[in-house]
Amino acid sequence: MNIFTAGYAVSNFGELWGISPRSLARSVMDEALVHSGLEAGSIDALFVGNMLSGVLGNQENLASVYAEVLGRNVPSFRLEAACASGGVALHNAIQSLLAGTYKTVLVLGIEKMTDHAQEEVLAGLMAAGSDDERGAGLTFAGLYAMMARSYMEKYHVSEEDLACIPVKNHKHAKNNPKAQFRSQITVEDVIKSARIADPLRLLDCSPISDGAAAIIITADKKMLKRKNISSITASEVGIDSVGLAKRVSLLTIQASVDASEKAYKKTQLKPKDMQVAEVHDCFSIAEALALEDLGFSKKGRGAFDVRDGKMTFGATGVVVNPSGGLKACGHPVGATGVKQVIEIALQLERDGGRRQVENASVGLAHNVGGSGAVSTVHILQI
Amino acid sequence: MNIFTAGYAVSNFGELWGISPRSLARSVMDEALVHSGLEAGSIDALFVGNMLSGVLGNQENLASVYAEVLGRNVPSFRLEAACASGGVALHNAIQSLLAGTYKTVLVLGIEKMTDHAQEEVLAGLMAAGSDDERGAGLTFAGLYAMMARSYMEKYHVSEEDLACIPVKNHKHAKNNPKAQFRSQITVEDVIKSARIADPLRLLDCSPISDGAAAIIITADKKMLKRKNISSITASEVGIDSVGLAKRVSLLTIQASVDASEKAYKKTQLKPKDMQVAEVHDCFSIAEALALEDLGFSKKGRGAFDVRDGKMTFGATGVVVNPSGGLKACGHPVGATGVKQVIEIALQLERDGGRRQVENASVGLAHNVGGSGAVSTVHILQI
Repeated sequence: MNIFTAGYAVSNFGELWGISPRSLARSVMDEALVHSGLEAGSIDALFVGNMLSGVLGNQENLASVYAEVLGRNVPSFRLEAACASGGVALHNAIQSLLAGTYKTVLVLGIEKMTDHAQEEVLAGLMAAGSDDERGAGLTFAGLYAMMARSYMEKYHVSEEDLACIPVKNHKHAKNNPKAQFRSQITVEDVIKSARIADPLRLLDCSPISDGAAAIIITADKKMLKRKNISSITASEVGIDSVGLAKRVSLLTIQASVDASEKAYKKTQLKPKDMQVAEVHDCFSIAEALALEDLGFSKKGRGAFDVRDGKMTFGATGVVVNPSGGLKACGHPVGATGVKQVIEIALQLERDGGRRQVENASVGLAHNVGGSGAVSTVHILQI
Repeated sequence: MNIFTAGYAVSNFGELWGISPRSLARSVMDEALVHSGLEAGSIDALFVGNMLSGVLGNQENLASVYAEVLGRNVPSFRLEAACASGGVALHNAIQSLLAGTYKTVLVLGIEKMTDHAQEEVLAGLMAAGSDDERGAGLTFAGLYAMMARSYMEKYHVSEEDLACIPVKNHKHAKNNPKAQFRSQITVEDVIKSARIADPLRLLDCSPISDGAAAIIITADKKMLKRKNISSITASEVGIDSVGLAKRVSLLTIQASVDASEKAYKKTQLKPKDMQVAEVHDCFSIAEALALEDLGFSKKGRGAFDVRDGKMTFGATGVVVNPSGGLKACGHPVGATGVKQVIEIALQLERDGGRRQVENASVGLAHNVGGSGAVSTVHILQI
C-alpha cells in the first residue's frame, strides 16, 4: 500500500505571541487542505502530536480540541513522545491507513512555548528526562553537553569543529521564509556565544519556538489532486531507556540506529541512497551523532564531515537540514517531526524554492524524543 | 483478522500510596505476561494510556519509561485522551495489528492520582475541559451536574431514581476483590451524602484512584497459550466538541452514539445482543446516559431501568458494570478503559468468579473522555 503526502503546510516558526494554539492549528490545517485540494469532509481521522499543552496550558484532550478546530467529529488521537511527538503521531496515523480503518487522515504537530515563563518551559521539557536526571538538576542542554564532552574527547573534536554544524544550518535557513533565525553566523560567533552547558554554547542550542505543521496522508489515489506527489515508504520507531545512565553508550543514540536500520531494510535502500535529510539537531552534538547513527558519516566523523563541507548544497552526498534544522528553523516540539517530513516531501516534489536540493527523489526525516529515548525515521520517495 | 486477548491483569484499584508508578506498571505487565504464558520477548510494541503523569508527576515520554519497565526496547507509544486514554491506546494498538506492523502488543493503562494534593488533581482533570469551562470555574462534577439537572427535569427523574445506579454498582463491586469500594450503600445513603455539585452528591461520583491494567493482544494464533480466549471484534471511536456549550444536546453523549453505532455495524450485532457491558459511570448521570446512548435503554429510561431492577445479575438483558464500574471499582483515569475491556474478556472467558455473568459470550466496553469529547466502544466475543 502506498501512503501519499496529499497536501501539507507549515506555519512560520518563532515567537508567535499574537496567535492562539487553536488559530495556529486552524491556519496550517486550512492551508494543508487547500494544498491537497481536499475538503475537510475528506478527512477520516486526525492525529495530533504535542508534548506540553497540559503542563504549560492546562489543556489536555487535544484530539477533541483540534477536531473541533478542523470542524469534523472524526476519530482523533493525541500522541505524546516528548520532542518526537510529531514523528510518533505520523507513525500511528500510517498504521491506521495500513490497517484499512481510515483512508485519508490529517496529522497535526503543534507547540506553543513562548507564551510561558522560560523556567516553566525548561521544567516542562525535563518531563522528558528521567527521575534521576531531574533530581540531579540536569537540563536537556546539560544532558547533551555530557554527550558532547564524551564525543569530543573520544574523537578529538574541537568546539570549532562542532560549531560548523549550526553555521551550516543557519546558512540553509537563510533560504527558508518560515525559519525562526535567518541570520548568518560564523564559527567565531558560536565560540563567542554564552556557555549554556559546557561545552555547548548558546549558538549550539535550538531555540524555544512556537509553530505548527499539518500533513494530509492518504492511501487512496483518488484523493490526489496534485501532480508529483511523494510517498512515505517507511515509518519506523526506535526506543531506548528514558535516562542517559542506562544507555549502552553516550556516543550513539541507539534508538536512531534501530529505527533507521528498520527503515533501510523496509525500503531496501542504503544511507548513501538518501539525497536529502532532516535530522534532529536540537544541539550541535545531536546532528553529529545523527549523521553517524543514520549511516551518513562514519563513527566519529559526523562533525568533521560537516566541517569539511559535506552535508550541504553543492557537496556530493546527502544535504542535511535544508530547512535550517531545529537550530535555525526552530523547534516547536510537537510540530518538529511533522515539519521535517513535510520538508522532505516538498524537496522531492520540487517545491523547495531557493533551498531546493537538485534532483532529489529519496529523502529521510529523523525525529528524536528526550535525549534519545525515542526516535522515528521516515523515508520518502517520489 | 482476529484480535485475541492473549492475557491480562488488573491491579487493585484504590489509594496505593506504597507503590511507585513504575512498580505498579511492572506488577500488571508481569502478571499479564504470566497469564498469557508469553515472555516479554514476544511483545512487539507497547501502547500506554495515561492522562496526568506530566501535569502531576512531571514525567512525560511515558512510552520509553514503561518500555524500560517492560525491559524491552520495542516501539512504544503514549496516548492521551483524558479519561478515555486507555480505550484510545487500545484502539491504536489494534490498528497496528490490523496494519500487520506488529503481531503481539501490550496495552498498559495507568494512573497515580492520590499521591498529589486534591486541588492539583482537580485542576489537572479540568485540562480535559474547555477554556470557557475552566474560566467559569467549573469542575467535572459541575459539568455532569448540568447534564443531570437537564436530564432530571426533562424526564422527571428524581434524585432517588438516579441514586439506584451507584447502589447497583456498589452491589456488584462487593464481588470484585480489586475494587476500591466494596461497601454496600443504599439509596438513602446516596441522598444523605454531601452535595458535590447540585444535584450530584458524593455517592454519585466516582473516586480519585490509583491503578493499572495491562492487556496483551495478538493477531497470531500461535501466541495463544490458554484455552477459551476472547476476541475484540470492534474498536470504534467517537469525537465531539471538548466543551458542553457546543454540543447538540446535554441529554446525549453523541460521541458514544457514534462509536457504538459503528461497533454494532462492524459486528452486525445489536444492543440487545450484549450480555455484559462495562460503561463509563464517572457520575450516576453518566451511566444513565450511557445506557441510552449504547441502545440498552430507551431515551429517558436509563435511570428508571436501573431503578426497576434491570442491568444487574438475575435480571433479563445485559448486566452493566459487573466490576462495580468507575463508581465502586474506582477510576484511575488512564487505567479505566483498559480495565473495562479486561473485565469483559474475563467475563466471556468464565473467569468472573463470584461476579460471573452466566453464559456471556458477547460484551461491550465503553470509555468516555472529558464530559463526552471522546468515546471508545469495544465489542468482545468468544
